[in-house]
Amino acid sequence: MTTFPPAKFQKFKETSAPGNVAPRLKMLREKLAGAKIDGFLVPRADVHRGEMVPASEERLSFVTGFTGSAGVAVVGTQKAALFVDGRYTLQAPAQTDTNLIEVKNVPADDLGDWIKANLPEGGTLGFDPWLHTPGEIKALVENLDGHMTLKPMENLVDAIWTDRPAPPAAQAEILGLNRAGKSAADKISELQQTLKAAKADSLVLTLPESLCWLFNVRGRDVPNTPFVLGFAIVLQTGKPDLFVNEGKFTKTDQQRLAETVNLKTSEEFASALAKLKGAVWIDPANTPSAVGETLRANNVRLIEKPDPVLLPKSRKNEAELAGMREAHERDGVAMAKFLCWFDAEAPGGQLTEIDIVTALESFRREDETLVDISFETISGAGPNAALPHYRVNTASNRKLNAGELMLVDSGGQYLSGTTDITRTMATGSTTEEQRDRNTRVLKGMIGISRLNFPKGTSGASIDAIARMSLWQAGLNYNHGTGHGVGAFLSVHEGPIGISPRYPTPLAPGMVISNEPGFYKEGDYGIRIENLIYVVEDPDHEGFLKFETLTLCPIDTRLVEISLLTQDERIWLNAYHARVNAEIGPRLEGNVKAWLAQVTQPI
Amino acid sequence: MTTFPPAKFQKFKETSAPGNVAPRLKMLREKLAGAKIDGFLVPRADVHRGEMVPASEERLSFVTGFTGSAGVAVVGTQKAALFVDGRYTLQAPAQTDTNLIEVKNVPADDLGDWIKANLPEGGTLGFDPWLHTPGEIKALVENLDGHMTLKPMENLVDAIWTDRPAPPAAQAEILGLNRAGKSAADKISELQQTLKAAKADSLVLTLPESLCWLFNVRGRDVPNTPFVLGFAIVLQTGKPDLFVNEGKFTKTDQQRLAETVNLKTSEEFASALAKLKGAVWIDPANTPSAVGETLRANNVRLIEKPDPVLLPKSRKNEAELAGMREAHERDGVAMAKFLCWFDAEAPGGQLTEIDIVTALESFRREDETLVDISFETISGAGPNAALPHYRVNTASNRKLNAGELMLVDSGGQYLSGTTDITRTMATGSTTEEQRDRNTRVLKGMIGISRLNFPKGTSGASIDAIARMSLWQAGLNYNHGTGHGVGAFLSVHEGPIGISPRYPTPLAPGMVISNEPGFYKEGDYGIRIENLIYVVEDPDHEGFLKFETLTLCPIDTRLVEISLLTQDERIWLNAYHARVNAEIGPRLEGNVKAWLAQVTQPI
Repeated sequence: MTTFPPAKFQKFKETSAPGNVAPRLKMLREKLAGAKIDGFLVPRADVHRGEMVPASEERLSFVTGFTGSAGVAVVGTQKAALFVDGRYTLQAPAQTDTNLIEVKNVPADDLGDWIKANLPEGGTLGFDPWLHTPGEIKALVENLDGHMTLKPMENLVDAIWTDRPAPPAAQAEILGLNRAGKSAADKISELQQTLKAAKADSLVLTLPESLCWLFNVRGRDVPNTPFVLGFAIVLQTGKPDLFVNEGKFTKTDQQRLAETVNLKTSEEFASALAKLKGAVWIDPANTPSAVGETLRANNVRLIEKPDPVLLPKSRKNEAELAGMREAHERDGVAMAKFLCWFDAEAPGGQLTEIDIVTALESFRREDETLVDISFETISGAGPNAALPHYRVNTASNRKLNAGELMLVDSGGQYLSGTTDITRTMATGSTTEEQRDRNTRVLKGMIGISRLNFPKGTSGASIDAIARMSLWQAGLNYNHGTGHGVGAFLSVHEGPIGISPRYPTPLAPGMVISNEPGFYKEGDYGIRIENLIYVVEDPDHEGFLKFETLTLCPIDTRLVEISLLTQDERIWLNAYHARVNAEIGPRLEGNVKAWLAQVTQPI
Repeated sequence: MTTFPPAKFQKFKETSAPGNVAPRLKMLREKLAGAKIDGFLVPRADVHRGEMVPASEERLSFVTGFTGSAGVAVVGTQKAALFVDGRYTLQAPAQTDTNLIEVKNVPADDLGDWIKANLPEGGTLGFDPWLHTPGEIKALVENLDGHMTLKPMENLVDAIWTDRPAPPAAQAEILGLNRAGKSAADKISELQQTLKAAKADSLVLTLPESLCWLFNVRGRDVPNTPFVLGFAIVLQTGKPDLFVNEGKFTKTDQQRLAETVNLKTSEEFASALAKLKGAVWIDPANTPSAVGETLRANNVRLIEKPDPVLLPKSRKNEAELAGMREAHERDGVAMAKFLCWFDAEAPGGQLTEIDIVTALESFRREDETLVDISFETISGAGPNAALPHYRVNTASNRKLNAGELMLVDSGGQYLSGTTDITRTMATGSTTEEQRDRNTRVLKGMIGISRLNFPKGTSGASIDAIARMSLWQAGLNYNHGTGHGVGAFLSVHEGPIGISPRYPTPLAPGMVISNEPGFYKEGDYGIRIENLIYVVEDPDHEGFLKFETLTLCPIDTRLVEISLLTQDERIWLNAYHARVNAEIGPRLEGNVKAWLAQVTQPI
């Protein structure tokens, strides 16, 4: 068996110390008493609302030990609870002290209900208004129905967190025009037109993805996503203010940035906010409650609408698409090496899920332009793959037995772009049921890939097309069919997706994942994912279609040819021919031969 | 050619007198001056928001001459405009005096923009708050952006309408339990549970469809829909108040009704409203602005949510479904007679659109349980069928030339239930393009008919399935795929439909139309429509599917067999076999032979 260097980007050991929970709860409760309140909310989210937060913002982990990417704790004077979703049902109890913190599962368990049952009626529940959106607070207030008063206040966790890490200060970069495709000055000018049309005097940006795209900057402040964390205030005319921690940009880059922005420190953001006048645009779904409250206190008129950067950002320009294509060629090479290795090793029955993650990361790192993985690889052997968001750790690590199915969902952040791919592989003989289910999933994936649709059609409208073949057999999958993907940015981005939750029309340049699946609890999981992007349909005026970015073979050992229509079979063979033509020349030796073999027409 | 008695339910002559416009505008403008306002809104809508209004509510027609089913006029001291949608682009200018009233087309033209350009800045625009929803007024206020003040006031049209017809006083009936399937007492009790759960002390109902369903009553107050017009106030406990004009129910029926409701007159509604206290549920999308304003003036807490009767009403019970099946058998007999006659006569090239409507109504009226047509028949010969909502009148009436396609969209109100069906017929040789388009439309119709889907799926999610085959050829249709249908009630009802506008999940018992189409301007139009209803999928737990109600052959002369999949062909042949098996025994002679012939497998 080939040996690989240890993974650099992905960790498999959960760094949790449940023993810390008791003393930290004790300290926090002393602060509750000092503040004369009866409870405090501790969310995973930071001010920027991202999936990944820097170490300095890991308050939930500091208090509860739980390291998952979503959740909220409520700490009362006697009782405490941690609310997590289905991804963390096993992980959360293993990481926290369940004698002191009750672990609850959303959506079955409800935060408001727990508070009503466990915290005193007529009491006060504190929260940090920088860590919650107004919508979250409003929903909780309605749910509590007068049981408690919610009080915005300083963060009590910060007050007890004496060894809190410093905020991230990673070096940031400016994207050249060859990569960004449009200058920051042009993007700002177009955004200012949007503000003018909406009669907004200014716009407050708190999402790092908006800030990074608008100013053509990227950083390394959080894992997996090349964010520069910061804030921006864009006025209807003149240079916007960009607030980032000092020292992120070199002196030279600071001078370049100063041509289009006023560079300020993050500490100056709150006071700048307090000086805004007129009509200010904020996105109520993504902006912390504190922003709106600060503005309201100054009698500013709020225009509450979605962040106007999200939509133009989602429509990649030619340079961004060229970068995405390059990233997918690079990723296709790594995936081919990985799958060739996997096909040789897996039937031996000795690989573990961690071996597989480590090997894949190693193959990706052979590309010098890889910056990071784009999310922690989902490596599911046999029944573990039936958990759609399963992430392996040393405790859960499972050996892949010969004959089991293997699901790997992974991606890379290359300097040129972001990838996200899922393949499901056979490791020996497969059952008729597995081939049937895999073929239905594939039919759904092909159905979206081949689809053309009139302009104005949303992802919500086409989601069912990926599911129909499964539906016919009374089957389904409990997740969306696709999510937007950034260009060397977030691997999950709005405002589009393929699921009933996304009514925004699809438009040329949008990059989206296409990933139907099927999960049989305790047995196996299947998902096939390509990234695709929207283009004009050259044959039909007023219509759009998809082009496929991902270049990687689909395991035909799991395909029941008789279930495919002629058109679907033609699509699959053409796709494989393209994969071999584009990736084959970049490979050598046995990997090249392997790729030619597995992309043969069926 | 067979001769038919004149149509009883459908009129073909537009009863308009443009000469009345000048004197009526003059009188209305005197009232504007008297009220010291600068304009007044005259909508088509009445207080009950239905598609059909009684003669006493035809204010828009009284002022402008325009008799269409939707529109709004704004009358200023100097200028006036009438806003209509695409259905009435030709009809409206023909009916009004265009020297005095500018006809504008929505959505291209905007009411607010016209007002800003033509009525004085700083002026006052009056409106009758009983004829507009709060949403309409809010949207107009936002659009006017301070240009004018909107003022709720008494209706100035009523003040000049000296020969206004009396409100409708048609006899109403109580549905027996055999037809309603659930007693009014049980429905009221379940509704009161809903009010309790929502912490609403009372509910105000202004939609006649809600009132008719809840109290198991039907009337003849408006054409085409068996409405009793009235209002209701349902308290969380005790008997609801039902407000209807006196004399609609017989003394015996009044006594029966009094077992479950307090019967009051319509005149008492406003004062009853003014006495409500606590939390009152109103539907802001359907309730007149005046209702909310009256309640607000009394410091009542408003719960603004969709009318809670709409959802249970949409889920037909077994008795209602049995009635709908019976209505469709009856309608299937009429349609078979009609289509047999049509096939014999149309190739002669002498039929007009009005001949066709008259014949169809006559065949329907042979059934003694027919109460009315369920809407005015859309009878489109050749290019006229390319207007999806075309309604023939004496001016537009067109001869159907041999070889042209004929589209007929029609329905009946039977005592047992409501029908709605569209068929497109060949009258001679057809082109390859017509057969291709018709087959694509049929594939969409079959796609919905055959579909199964998990519980929780909405009509918005499945709409694309009806369009995919057209999309592949770069084609589409510019209307929804389906609308909800009432049981001996409105032929168009919410809250479900098949189109992106309907996110409400489909549930067992819901009846919906399935009517994809294709329209080639100036040439031909195609639509194929069956009614279907939602049932549990017996083969797959947690899944739903559709059963078809409509029993009428689909013209196979317009079907390109090679474009159908094997499954689609099987569906079509099975459908035709069922139509012949269920309708054939109810027919005689040449019609019976015709049906057996046209339902042969292909």
